Amino acid sequence: MDKLAMTDALMAAKLAKGLSWETIGSDLNMSPVWVASACLGMNSAPAEKAKAIAEYLEVGPEVATALEVYPTKVWDQAVPTDPLIYRLYEVVGVYGDTLKQVIQEKFGDGIMSAIDFSMEVDKIEDPKGDRVLLTLNGKFLPYKSW
Amino acid sequence: MDKLAMTDALMAAKLAKGLSWETIGSDLNMSPVWVASACLGMNSAPAEKAKAIAEYLEVGPEVATALEVYPTKVWDQAVPTDPLIYRLYEVVGVYGDTLKQVIQEKFGDGIMSAIDFSMEVDKIEDPKGDRVLLTLNGKFLPYKSW
Amino acid sequence: MDKLAMTDALMAAKLAKGLSWETIGSDLNMSPVWVASACLGMNSAPAEKAKAIAEYLEVGPEVATALEVYPTKVWDQAVPTDPLIYRLYEVVGVYGDTLKQVIQEKFGDGIMSAIDFSMEVDKIEDPKGDRVLLTLNGKFLPYKSW
Amino acid sequence: MDKLAMTDALMAAKLAKGLSWETIGSDLNMSPVWVASACLGMNSAPAEKAKAIAEYLEVGPEVATALEVYPTKVWDQAVPTDPLIYRLYEVVGVYGDTLKQVIQEKFGDGIMSAIDFSMEVDKIEDPKGDRVLLTLNGKFLPYKSW
Amino acid sequence: MDKLAMTDALMAAKLAKGLSWETIGSDLNMSPVWVASACLGMNSAPAEKAKAIAEYLEVGPEVATALEVYPTKVWDQAVPTDPLIYRLYEVVGVYGDTLKQVIQEKFGDGIMSAIDFSMEVDKIEDPKGDRVLLTLNGKFLPYKSW
Amino acid sequence: MDKLAMTDALMAAKLAKGLSWETIGSDLNMSPVWVASACLGMNSAPAEKAKAIAEYLEVGPEVATALEVYPTKVWDQAVPTDPLIYRLYEVVGVYGDTLKQVIQEKFGDGIMSAIDFSMEVDKIEDPKGDRVLLTLNGKFLPYKSW
Amino acid sequence: MDKLAMTDALMAAKLAKGLSWETIGSDLNMSPVWVASACLGMNSAPAEKAKAIAEYLEVGPEVATALEVYPTKVWDQAVPTDPLIYRLYEVVGVYGDTLKQVIQEKFGDGIMSAIDFSMEVDKIEDPKGDRVLLTLNGKFLPYKSW
Amino acid sequence: MDKLAMTDALMAAKLAKGLSWETIGSDLNMSPVWVASACLGMNSAPAEKAKAIAEYLEVGPEVATALEVYPTKVWDQAVPTDPLIYRLYEVVGVYGDTLKQVIQEKFGDGIMSAIDFSMEVDKIEDPKGDRVLLTLNGKFLPYKSW
Amino acid sequence: MDKLAMTDALMAAKLAKGLSWETIGSDLNMSPVWVASACLGMNSAPAEKAKAIAEYLEVGPEVATALEVYPTKVWDQAVPTDPLIYRLYEVVGVYGDTLKQVIQEKFGDGIMSAIDFSMEVDKIEDPKGDRVLLTLNGKFLPYKSW
Amino acid sequence: MDKLAMTDALMAAKLAKGLSWETIGSDLNMSPVWVASACLGMNSAPAEKAKAIAEYLEVGPEVATALEVYPTKVWDQAVPTDPLIYRLYEVVGVYGDTLKQVIQEKFGDGIMSAIDFSMEVDKIEDPKGDRVLLTLNGKFLPYKSW
Repeated sequence: MDKLAMTDALMAAKLAKGLSWETIGSDLNMSPVWVASACLGMNSAPAEKAKAIAEYLEVGPEVATALEVYPTKVWDQAVPTDPLIYRLYEVVGVYGDTLKQVIQEKFGDGIMSAIDFSMEVDKIEDPKGDRVLLTLNGKFLPYKSW
Repeated sequence: MDKLAMTDALMAAKLAKGLSWETIGSDLNMSPVWVASACLGMNSAPAEKAKAIAEYLEVGPEVATALEVYPTKVWDQAVPTDPLIYRLYEVVGVYGDTLKQVIQEKFGDGIMSAIDFSMEVDKIEDPKGDRVLLTLNGKFLPYKSW
Repeated sequence: MDKLAMTDALMAAKLAKGLSWETIGSDLNMSPVWVASACLGMNSAPAEKAKAIAEYLEVGPEVATALEVYPTKVWDQAVPTDPLIYRLYEVVGVYGDTLKQVIQEKFGDGIMSAIDFSMEVDKIEDPKGDRVLLTLNGKFLPYKSW
Repeated sequence: MDKLAMTDALMAAKLAKGLSWETIGSDLNMSPVWVASACLGMNSAPAEKAKAIAEYLEVGPEVATALEVYPTKVWDQAVPTDPLIYRLYEVVGVYGDTLKQVIQEKFGDGIMSAIDFSMEVDKIEDPKGDRVLLTLNGKFLPYKSW
Repeated sequence: MDKLAMTDALMAAKLAKGLSWETIGSDLNMSPVWVASACLGMNSAPAEKAKAIAEYLEVGPEVATALEVYPTKVWDQAVPTDPLIYRLYEVVGVYGDTLKQVIQEKFGDGIMSAIDFSMEVDKIEDPKGDRVLLTLNGKFLPYKSW
Repeated sequence: MDKLAMTDALMAAKLAKGLSWETIGSDLNMSPVWVASACLGMNSAPAEKAKAIAEYLEVGPEVATALEVYPTKVWDQAVPTDPLIYRLYEVVGVYGDTLKQVIQEKFGDGIMSAIDFSMEVDKIEDPKGDRVLLTLNGKFLPYKSW
Repeated sequence: MDKLAMTDALMAAKLAKGLSWETIGSDLNMSPVWVASACLGMNSAPAEKAKAIAEYLEVGPEVATALEVYPTKVWDQAVPTDPLIYRLYEVVGVYGDTLKQVIQEKFGDGIMSAIDFSMEVDKIEDPKGDRVLLTLNGKFLPYKSW
Repeated sequence: MDKLAMTDALMAAKLAKGLSWETIGSDLNMSPVWVASACLGMNSAPAEKAKAIAEYLEVGPEVATALEVYPTKVWDQAVPTDPLIYRLYEVVGVYGDTLKQVIQEKFGDGIMSAIDFSMEVDKIEDPKGDRVLLTLNGKFLPYKSW
Repeated sequence: MDKLAMTDALMAAKLAKGLSWETIGSDLNMSPVWVASACLGMNSAPAEKAKAIAEYLEVGPEVATALEVYPTKVWDQAVPTDPLIYRLYEVVGVYGDTLKQVIQEKFGDGIMSAIDFSMEVDKIEDPKGDRVLLTLNGKFLPYKSW
Repeated sequence: MDKLAMTDALMAAKLAKGLSWETIGSDLNMSPVWVASACLGMNSAPAEKAKAIAEYLEVGPEVATALEVYPTKVWDQAVPTDPLIYRLYEVVGVYGDTLKQVIQEKFGDGIMSAIDFSMEVDKIEDPKGDRVLLTLNGKFLPYKSW
């Protein structure tokens, strides 16, 4: 079973059970963002987590096996077109140099890891229009000299 | 005075005074990220904030005027090469579809605005390596039908 | 049923009934542009509108369900080739900087939303050749400082 | 005097006099959008209009001559980055096929001209947030067979 | 029946009957270039011409219907590779600025329409090597000011 | 003197004398298109023609020398933006496959040369709008087998 | 039978008979390069040669017919990845301007035809490592003035 | 002295002396192609050859030093536009797969080196039109297994 | 059997037997990197090695035959997206000019061959986090003059 | 002093003193690759190393300061053209998937860091042609789940 078929199986089960990523994450004690990413095939799941997800969604053990596979992460290399994703890309374009200044001033020369990394989505209710809160948390990695 | 000359003047003053974005933001009661972005020419500053920044850094009033100008936001449309900025771009590529799923499940069909938007950088000290915390806060805009 | 199959079903029903977008929109009290966009899969329809469209075109309830799904909006990222669509792209190229000047002078620093947005097509009859009138109506979103 | 120097001269005069495109257009009985486009060098001005603009802004006759020159219209062929211009590009991407359907159903096989074309910007005041109204008016050109 | 199937049906009939575009055009009193373009799916045919082509080539009425459909004109946006087509592209590259100079000097600021347009191919016999004569005929469209 | 300086010198002389490419070509017994192309630096001129052009426009002999230099023909490899040139590019896109069919059916497998090639621009006056007539004349080159 | 199926049939027959392009070319009195190119579908074969190839490889007459068809020559427009082909592309990049200098100095302004063209591959045995000898032979085509 | 200034100095000296690459190569006992390539800055010259070239063209010793520098070989990565260079690129596109077949059948799996490589240009006089003969000579490098 | 089917067969056998590239390479006395590359279809295997691999993994002789076929090496020409592969690409971008300096200073003008080449992967255990050691070994090829 | 001027100053000093990266690295007890990379402006140097390099090469303290600046790492995003650098890029293309397989099999799901990373160049003398040995050493970073 490849990652595509795995995602189809998981999405069908999720839809049939009427579950949200929020609920799944909360019931399994995992982050909703991470669960969604693993189910969409962009992250591998450790064995016990893969098993927990598959059992919770009542799909076969071959889905758990597929969740454990290390994915080749592929996305469209052109500018993204979906407006929600484009806005994130625009943030990187507009604020990229600013973040480089502020982060490196605070931490030294280096980067924020996208591997040793986690991310959350929260909702801030607001009478003038609710707000999306994205929290990105990555280990700082300093460049080394040798 | 165009935005390029403005940035040069502000960066020279900042360097001469030995100030960090952190300190400037804190002293002026503005976000360090927003101050850096305005000084780098990617956001316009309202008149009173432009004046405050110019006076604080002791640069001429023509710099304040340049800070008020509405910028044409331009960045390199190819994949960014600087490793710090690339990692942010990678996050959008790896987690773009996941964020679309999780945000739209939580808020309905729509986007997180990159205009009615703010962002912060924090440092989480950690003996195994400090961590960078980025917080993105954007208004949710629902699609309308008509 | 995915968006592609949904569009096929809706287009076949529309053709069989000999209806135009104009008539459909007028009978359902919706904009012809918005109905066409929802049926082509580039906008989601609120539940009651999805139901109304499906019933009017006498297609099954699974089509109404598909109309409600939030689409991932994808288009060809290269320069469009169809002459009608290219002319619109050319308008953005030729008049983009002009519109930035005129809109921001009138409204301040910010953008015209493409999310809180509607659009209409009208025909102006003219003995020297009929004219197409496109009306775009989007909320102005000011940049914020923080 | 080339178009670049012409634009510099016109923008400096406009700024010095504190005029908006709105006022200039209204005083000269021309559309603000068209005046801005001609002054930015993306459209040529007929002789008498070129003279009127130059006299009104009190710039030399060589500016009027430059306004008459037929421009080579050049813009960046990659996806535009400035958020205001990108949103217009996004509208073409999201609604391009829809507009093709609706226009050709109404007018037959052909295009909306971007040459025999005009455009206006209006402001609709609204307590929930002002709205931008763009009106595009282009001659319909039917394809011919031969 | 879509345009692809239509082209297949028409090409098979043309091959079976051993006809050239020259003969088809001449027998039907249409331009060979236009007939070929309509049969290849890059132009729509008015009803009576669609019917005439289908009857002449003895294909079913669904082919005539398909000929009437307004096509979405799509071609490969990269530099063309086929040597015959590349040479035409090279002519546009080498002579584009020259044609702009000569046409606009003769007609004023504007363009040659590619919509109100026709084209012919002729053969000039020559003992040193026959020559291809392409004739392009397009309406001149002047830019308007407003 | 490089080609850029040569073009500047020739264009200045042409403007000062109030000459059109039409008149220059007619007086020198050369095609206006070819003269324009040589003066814009996209074709080299044989020695006697280079001399004739330079003497007619009363520019120095170094301009004649520059006209003789074999140019490196360079143009922007992206899709052209100027509307007049884009329409020519669109013609190649829309009619490329059609021309391949019609030309190769008439002449055999091969191409129309863009080197052993000439081109003319004519004006057809028409009360419904003047028309541009472009005539391309290229030697047919058959592929060889060996 | 299209060119793809034709190539499959010819390659299968060649493999089954254990023949090399060298032997086929030598037995049929054609160049191995040209035979390979025709069999791979990048050149059309004159009728008698098509017949000879098909009979020699003992494939059906529909393969001979397919060999006669004029191909649309298509290749990947990005930089080639296969190392053997890339090295040829690198030669064009490194030596392109040099060849332009040396050829045009020797022949005048013009090009080496890629249509009236042939090419051979030879092996030079050498104890320090055999060498590949490629010989390209193309007609010189001078630019014309008119 | 960088490579650009070096090329300018060498080209000026060559022009002043009225020399061709043919003559230079023949007098210095070097290949005209290699000399041109070294003078254009795309190959480095061994010390004694650099000295010989500089003395022959009577330019200063700093030019000889510049000829010895190892160049960074850079060329435009898009499809070349100059017709002479494009035809070479077209040859690689049309015949790339064919050459791979014929060379690897003759030599085994591997490539023709573009480093241990030489190239010549010859003229074949022909009453029907002279022909260009390009000879490429590269060491065959077999892939290794390990 | 083409390379794709070959890879599928080999990967299935490897998975079924629970073997790693490390073990396969060690048992067959081949480098794990080379075995993986041959099984993934990016290198051809000499006959005896192809036979050894097929027998060891107990797949049919048609797999051995497919392993011997000279591959056309194709990869995605855009910037790689998978993070592991991107990091290698980043190393080439960041250190490319540095390696050119250091290698050419040490060896003279020339390149490191990617054909006469081998590569190994080793693991260095480290309490602060294990390290990956990549060793690339390629023959130096000096440029020649001629 | 920006990084460009810094590199010019350092390269001039190195040339004047006749030093190699090898010698500099060895005398300063730093890796030649790292020193070259820092001097070319692609890595920042810690303060004491920056000072040591500047003193050793006898350049002013403003060069040491420039060496400490955190660089924005920029390189050409298209396929590299210089043959030495292209071969490294080819290695990533040919062996990228192989390395992903072998590394992740050995270490688990994750990447080799290009930040916590070092690299060396060595020469292996060989009578059949010297060999380049590149050693890349990067920390393994496992993906985390959360």
